[in-house]
Amino acid sequence: MIQRFDKLQTELPPPSDPDPVGASIVQELMGGKFGEMSTFMNYTIQSFNFRSRQKARPFYDLIASIAGEEFGHIELVATAINTMLTGAADTEAGQAGKLEAVRTTLNPQQFLAGGAATLVQDSNGKPWNGDYVFSSGDLIEDLTHNFFLETGARNNKLKVYESVDHPAARALTGYLLVRGGVHQVAYARALERLTGADLMKLFPTPRIPTDSIPECQPHIKKGLHRTLFRFSPEDFMEVKAVFNGPHPETGEDLVVADEPMPEGAPAFDLPAQEAVFAPGPAPEEIAEIAAKLRDKAGLGKEPHGVVAQDGSGGVMSKVKESLS
Amino acid sequence: MIQRFDKLQTELPPPSDPDPVGASIVQELMGGKFGEMSTFMNYTIQSFNFRSRQKARPFYDLIASIAGEEFGHIELVATAINTMLTGAADTEAGQAGKLEAVRTTLNPQQFLAGGAATLVQDSNGKPWNGDYVFSSGDLIEDLTHNFFLETGARNNKLKVYESVDHPAARALTGYLLVRGGVHQVAYARALERLTGADLMKLFPTPRIPTDSIPECQPHIKKGLHRTLFRFSPEDFMEVKAVFNGPHPETGEDLVVADEPMPEGAPAFDLPAQEAVFAPGPAPEEIAEIAAKLRDKAGLGKEPHGVVAQDGSGGVMSKVKESLS
Amino acid sequence: MIQRFDKLQTELPPPSDPDPVGASIVQELMGGKFGEMSTFMNYTIQSFNFRSRQKARPFYDLIASIAGEEFGHIELVATAINTMLTGAADTEAGQAGKLEAVRTTLNPQQFLAGGAATLVQDSNGKPWNGDYVFSSGDLIEDLTHNFFLETGARNNKLKVYESVDHPAARALTGYLLVRGGVHQVAYARALERLTGADLMKLFPTPRIPTDSIPECQPHIKKGLHRTLFRFSPEDFMEVKAVFNGPHPETGEDLVVADEPMPEGAPAFDLPAQEAVFAPGPAPEEIAEIAAKLRDKAGLGKEPHGVVAQDGSGGVMSKVKESLS
Amino acid sequence: MIQRFDKLQTELPPPSDPDPVGASIVQELMGGKFGEMSTFMNYTIQSFNFRSRQKARPFYDLIASIAGEEFGHIELVATAINTMLTGAADTEAGQAGKLEAVRTTLNPQQFLAGGAATLVQDSNGKPWNGDYVFSSGDLIEDLTHNFFLETGARNNKLKVYESVDHPAARALTGYLLVRGGVHQVAYARALERLTGADLMKLFPTPRIPTDSIPECQPHIKKGLHRTLFRFSPEDFMEVKAVFNGPHPETGEDLVVADEPMPEGAPAFDLPAQEAVFAPGPAPEEIAEIAAKLRDKAGLGKEPHGVVAQDGSGGVMSKVKESLS
Amino acid sequence: MIQRFDKLQTELPPPSDPDPVGASIVQELMGGKFGEMSTFMNYTIQSFNFRSRQKARPFYDLIASIAGEEFGHIELVATAINTMLTGAADTEAGQAGKLEAVRTTLNPQQFLAGGAATLVQDSNGKPWNGDYVFSSGDLIEDLTHNFFLETGARNNKLKVYESVDHPAARALTGYLLVRGGVHQVAYARALERLTGADLMKLFPTPRIPTDSIPECQPHIKKGLHRTLFRFSPEDFMEVKAVFNGPHPETGEDLVVADEPMPEGAPAFDLPAQEAVFAPGPAPEEIAEIAAKLRDKAGLGKEPHGVVAQDGSGGVMSKVKESLS
Amino acid sequence: MIQRFDKLQTELPPPSDPDPVGASIVQELMGGKFGEMSTFMNYTIQSFNFRSRQKARPFYDLIASIAGEEFGHIELVATAINTMLTGAADTEAGQAGKLEAVRTTLNPQQFLAGGAATLVQDSNGKPWNGDYVFSSGDLIEDLTHNFFLETGARNNKLKVYESVDHPAARALTGYLLVRGGVHQVAYARALERLTGADLMKLFPTPRIPTDSIPECQPHIKKGLHRTLFRFSPEDFMEVKAVFNGPHPETGEDLVVADEPMPEGAPAFDLPAQEAVFAPGPAPEEIAEIAAKLRDKAGLGKEPHGVVAQDGSGGVMSKVKESLS
Repeated sequence: MIQRFDKLQTELPPPSDPDPVGASIVQELMGGKFGEMSTFMNYTIQSFNFRSRQKARPFYDLIASIAGEEFGHIELVATAINTMLTGAADTEAGQAGKLEAVRTTLNPQQFLAGGAATLVQDSNGKPWNGDYVFSSGDLIEDLTHNFFLETGARNNKLKVYESVDHPAARALTGYLLVRGGVHQVAYARALERLTGADLMKLFPTPRIPTDSIPECQPHIKKGLHRTLFRFSPEDFMEVKAVFNGPHPETGEDLVVADEPMPEGAPAFDLPAQEAVFAPGPAPEEIAEIAAKLRDKAGLGKEPHGVVAQDGSGGVMSKVKESLS
Repeated sequence: MIQRFDKLQTELPPPSDPDPVGASIVQELMGGKFGEMSTFMNYTIQSFNFRSRQKARPFYDLIASIAGEEFGHIELVATAINTMLTGAADTEAGQAGKLEAVRTTLNPQQFLAGGAATLVQDSNGKPWNGDYVFSSGDLIEDLTHNFFLETGARNNKLKVYESVDHPAARALTGYLLVRGGVHQVAYARALERLTGADLMKLFPTPRIPTDSIPECQPHIKKGLHRTLFRFSPEDFMEVKAVFNGPHPETGEDLVVADEPMPEGAPAFDLPAQEAVFAPGPAPEEIAEIAAKLRDKAGLGKEPHGVVAQDGSGGVMSKVKESLS
Repeated sequence: MIQRFDKLQTELPPPSDPDPVGASIVQELMGGKFGEMSTFMNYTIQSFNFRSRQKARPFYDLIASIAGEEFGHIELVATAINTMLTGAADTEAGQAGKLEAVRTTLNPQQFLAGGAATLVQDSNGKPWNGDYVFSSGDLIEDLTHNFFLETGARNNKLKVYESVDHPAARALTGYLLVRGGVHQVAYARALERLTGADLMKLFPTPRIPTDSIPECQPHIKKGLHRTLFRFSPEDFMEVKAVFNGPHPETGEDLVVADEPMPEGAPAFDLPAQEAVFAPGPAPEEIAEIAAKLRDKAGLGKEPHGVVAQDGSGGVMSKVKESLS
Repeated sequence: MIQRFDKLQTELPPPSDPDPVGASIVQELMGGKFGEMSTFMNYTIQSFNFRSRQKARPFYDLIASIAGEEFGHIELVATAINTMLTGAADTEAGQAGKLEAVRTTLNPQQFLAGGAATLVQDSNGKPWNGDYVFSSGDLIEDLTHNFFLETGARNNKLKVYESVDHPAARALTGYLLVRGGVHQVAYARALERLTGADLMKLFPTPRIPTDSIPECQPHIKKGLHRTLFRFSPEDFMEVKAVFNGPHPETGEDLVVADEPMPEGAPAFDLPAQEAVFAPGPAPEEIAEIAAKLRDKAGLGKEPHGVVAQDGSGGVMSKVKESLS
Repeated sequence: MIQRFDKLQTELPPPSDPDPVGASIVQELMGGKFGEMSTFMNYTIQSFNFRSRQKARPFYDLIASIAGEEFGHIELVATAINTMLTGAADTEAGQAGKLEAVRTTLNPQQFLAGGAATLVQDSNGKPWNGDYVFSSGDLIEDLTHNFFLETGARNNKLKVYESVDHPAARALTGYLLVRGGVHQVAYARALERLTGADLMKLFPTPRIPTDSIPECQPHIKKGLHRTLFRFSPEDFMEVKAVFNGPHPETGEDLVVADEPMPEGAPAFDLPAQEAVFAPGPAPEEIAEIAAKLRDKAGLGKEPHGVVAQDGSGGVMSKVKESLS
Repeated sequence: MIQRFDKLQTELPPPSDPDPVGASIVQELMGGKFGEMSTFMNYTIQSFNFRSRQKARPFYDLIASIAGEEFGHIELVATAINTMLTGAADTEAGQAGKLEAVRTTLNPQQFLAGGAATLVQDSNGKPWNGDYVFSSGDLIEDLTHNFFLETGARNNKLKVYESVDHPAARALTGYLLVRGGVHQVAYARALERLTGADLMKLFPTPRIPTDSIPECQPHIKKGLHRTLFRFSPEDFMEVKAVFNGPHPETGEDLVVADEPMPEGAPAFDLPAQEAVFAPGPAPEEIAEIAAKLRDKAGLGKEPHGVVAQDGSGGVMSKVKESLS
């Protein structure tokens, strides 16, 4: 079971200039073979399928807790894509030929199937599929896979960073590179524990140190490059039996955080995009109904959720101001 | 973000006689178009993509919290499949022709790709894919979809119940029918709130009342057919602005639980299946290494996780005794 | 545009003993690369995409009219599959483990996704897809494809005939072999007209004459092996500019029928299958509502459609009688 | 069985300026999950698979006759795409680098696989597949699906209307929105008849009234927003037992037309596109052969089919004149 | 470029009792994610795409030459499957219901699409696809992938060995395990050379030594577990700069053979299977034509190719004798 | 078995101005339904699956030897794509937003999944799949397929030639058109031999003679339009029993070459592309390690492979010079 926290793992910049082409490319980090759907579902299914979990508990705990973090990663990728698409479809609904972004993007379905929003597809518009999940049950083999998967994921994050200059994409990849690096180390270390092979010399792979990416620095300063979270209030305590020893690049100690997860940041209240009917061609109708329902349920006048900005659509205008 | 709890949403029976064919069929509830991967990922992605969430908060909270529950459903389906496959591959590893189950099952990849375990595929062996996710951003349309999705899911659960007589499959479908029914009602009620249309007369659909399924009764007695959980310690409080009023079949009040989630039950420590190398062809090696690592990390001699049974493999023998 | 006639192109035997495995195999003729969905959609799309149709009208008319016949072929394949599945799911709905056919068939989704009915899949459970349609626009090339497609289709029909002994499958393939043969000849003749190449010596391909299949004889006796229908009340008159000359195997003249299409036969009123909720777990409820609606609309007490048998479910019992 | 009429359901504008990007986007209405292939094949297969059709005849007739109309819709979508691509490949064949449209379109296969023509793919170039067909056999559930399918289809039509300014796309979506709306109402009404639930308040969904789309007006004026055709000369008479009562938006009576289908309009004689060899790199050769064959068959000198324009290529020049 | 040698890499047993179910399972080694199509095409494409090949020549030569061997592996897998299917379809062609094997196999398309022969599919009947090829261009990453791919391939070979008792399957997996082991070592060694990480302790993975598989022993005795072939008459000489040092399991020296490739064994002249029209329903016709053509071309009376047995169909009878 | 020769079948121009869009389109010739993966794998698998090969040896030899040539064709297509992408990613690695080509190409995965290199996909980014292989075992039918496949392949080559003006694409298609034409003739001739049908009048199809393509002329001058190679040192001698008689377009004699294969040309040493980490973000590190390994293995200082240019990166600069 899980419990959700209505927060992002890290802060991302608010919507600014829309970038549909960039958002098409960032899809690789969502639905690509090495995207976050793959890391999330691989570790999740491996944890469900784990046999002999008591006797091999440190390894089970490692996989299960990293799975917990990966949910937050698909959330971040979706958030970045959605902020990059915000503004691309905020014209009036029902007007012929006004939804121009569809003609110039690489992925028309972000608008036709989605509401200027994330799809579970890769950068070529191909859907993620369940056979991207590798769960052989053989612990050494699954860990070998996971190390390889994180390596491919790091490659893709670096290339997306190189390809898309939008602030949301840069912030996203800066964070994911740091956190993916931790998982890459964790799986290599687990393999070392089980086989005695010295895998630390493989780092960094690809051979671009996280140190050289400016957007990684704030997270490295907080020690996030060497810290694993359990993403559980009380479970997965044996993670620390595997995740320890020196970091392969810096030599610092790897640590398991006492707190279950990072503090995080409030999510955005993404403004409506009327041309794609999100949340409807006339969003105020829904707002009125919601207000009445809230009132009737004794919940008061103000929404209870905490978001990064107020819901009045001010984000877009403020950002645009700051850009002009 | 999420936090994981190392527990199942409900108790399932322990491994007994293996049933690979049945396990192939139950895959429909994992990776089928109307399986739990679909419900989980649809609501999760819809919650990520939700626009104007503050103004439409009761609806956002509804979708986001049901998504939280669905993670527990893929966990349950995987658990049921895995218990049904347990015992089908517990012969010695590396012996020619001893893995006989592969020849008679409908899905050889549960053994060849998996370790006698769940795949992210449907009952025809086709992988789940990301285009099963519908996330148009149009709230009324997404809710219409979700109501339809739950209807199709209920159909599939009923048919799997009819098709597979294995205790794990029966317990699984009994629980999922009750919980899926709650979600079906929730989405219909949300549509009523937004449009005024009276949808409660559509229930039950398919027209087989949950009342008539014996395996549903324990859950109905606990009121689980009319209770929604937020699956969050503090968020999604506005669910109750939508989920209220009478239950369409019983007339009882729909309620939102105060506690975030059901109490749940410990998961199984599924025994090793050596013939498929899960967790390895000689699982004791891994156990020894794990014991040393645990000790070295100051975690003591006993594993920290709580499981339904001890890890000595006693489950299988006890169950087999009870069957003979 | 089309108009439908609520009739089958030829008579098929009524439901008798169910044969789910056979029905899984017959799916190849529905959704396989060389199945009737492929012939139907290839010629349909080619006719839509045809350029310079006035100047090349005899060829356009040929393709367009054969497309019209192919609709009737997917109808026949579906009918055969459905009769073969009838009786496999007529137990009471909602009973655990009673839907036994699912465990022994090759395609569980005929029951889980369908109501003991046809899917748009092949014999391996893989869905038909739109890239099976070849529509290059180059007339000679499209005709070359069509000749090849009919050849592959004939191969598959012959093999299904060899694989499935069920009376519905035999009657189906007997008819389709004859009609597919006409189309194979038609496309070869069209190529001859355009290029001068003598293609008639390729027949029969595969090298099994239709003469040797008993189930083909009634249709051959009617001349259906050398007759093309326009499947249009007034259009496609130029078919006869291409479809003429001697039949490659018998030497008889090829003819275009004066009447638009074969007389056909009434379709079956397939009995309900309650275990798969088709048309519902308690079909009498629907019947009552329908009766009231019919009455209210001034349509009288009896259904207006003509079917092969009365709607009282007598088919099944009569057939079973005849088998015992 | 069907009979074809060599006519379009409604008039579309002739080829004008080519718009390959727009044509890539319109593909969503052909091969998308909610495109016309989906509506056509869903209702067609549901009608084949319908059980207990005599007792439930009004519902069978409804589904079967709407299926009949949908054939005309795939025909219209193909026609619109083909007119939009006309002119994009009319350079001489066999010249290096002259087929420039391929470099700027979103779907190169419209030229490489097709002859500047429609594919059975969606706007991301993914083929339509048979698992888009939902045919559970449970009447209430199939109708729920069909209502949802029409809702998604309406969403897609509106967005394509917003995305593509080409006259063919606007005329196409204007017509399809009106006719799709009729089907959406029909399925909702059928559900009302079976369950008593009041679904009319869901309209319009998405919440953009057809009234506000100029291209819908000519069709609304003819009453096409409230008229169902049987698309059969004599069958499906019981449609009117379901399709009646007030239209949810206008309150006018829903009616079933006496005539089987709309009058329609002649199709285009789309000019050759030599660069993609449609119907060949030197189309005059084919024309000569066809003329001889027609003559030899006693069909006279003029083609028998009726098309919107003469076949001399005058369409393109006339349109281009009118644009300059 | 390549040159083909009409020989198998190793001897396999001739056709004996057919085993269609086993042949369905062996498909995993052909078209599975970790099958031989994957190893063959991964290394082939990586060699085509290799950048800076002169400067990194030892690594290029390694990948390119292993690719050469893998062609022989898909040939062996196909041969094994084909021998296992031989005899399952040797009844007379065109007889209703005589092709019984189709009803009991897991993959009907081996008969319906193939001529009792190999498909490019996996054990679930899903086709191999090009996205199984990983070719990032980053040498360290590609080698990491290749090591992982060989690990997964070894897992699958072991499980197929455990699942299928047919002599052809056992001989096949015995050989492939030995040769795949060489490739696994080669890629690990290459990674060691590039990074300094000690990977040899990962062996064997899965943790079943090849020593314990009887069918591996003949090949181990010949030293095939530690020998790499260049599969080129003169190229890829720098392989030995990487492939050297001690074998991780036996400590023996790894060697590069002087001769380009193993001696090999003649292929089978697989007997006709008339019921699936391979090579035709009446194979003697083809034989007669071939004889005439051979004669006319001055090639003499006897076929020039060398096969394991004479072409008179004696194989089947001899094997059947030996089994009775 | 095969042996590889580290050479291309024909000379291609070196990298010049990068053309990512063109390279996306050329993918159709790699992974399209009618691309070289299809011709290569179809004939390869057909040769593996060939039954009764001794008696039908001339036909077996024909298919097997053409398969041998097709390997060289996938190699050529990959080479052309790779040269067209060279220069598009040669900026420094790890810089935000510098990999601009990804934003303007039709296939971002050539950079994100590949290292500015070929994928096994078509021009829409869809992976090649194993069901593109047709291998029915029925010789006449397989040959009919192969003739059709070559026809479709010729169509695609012509259209790519028309679409992409890059010198590599023109040289590639010029060569492939000539060689594909030989295969098209070969399969038609084989069908003639088996059936007596005169197929030569179908040529050329599409109706654009190779004569009219300037890039074909150098190859035609060498007689490559009428010469078949066995691609084997000693096998497949019976090819000449089928491949003989007059060429359908020129009337010249078809001949089987005495030498096994064309002389060929050295491959390129494609320069590193650092931004996509091919062969790494700092390629000199790999070069140093390779030099040491070569030295240690007694291979001397210079690489042993022969390439079209020296490995110092001079190609790019020279070409760029020549362009400025």
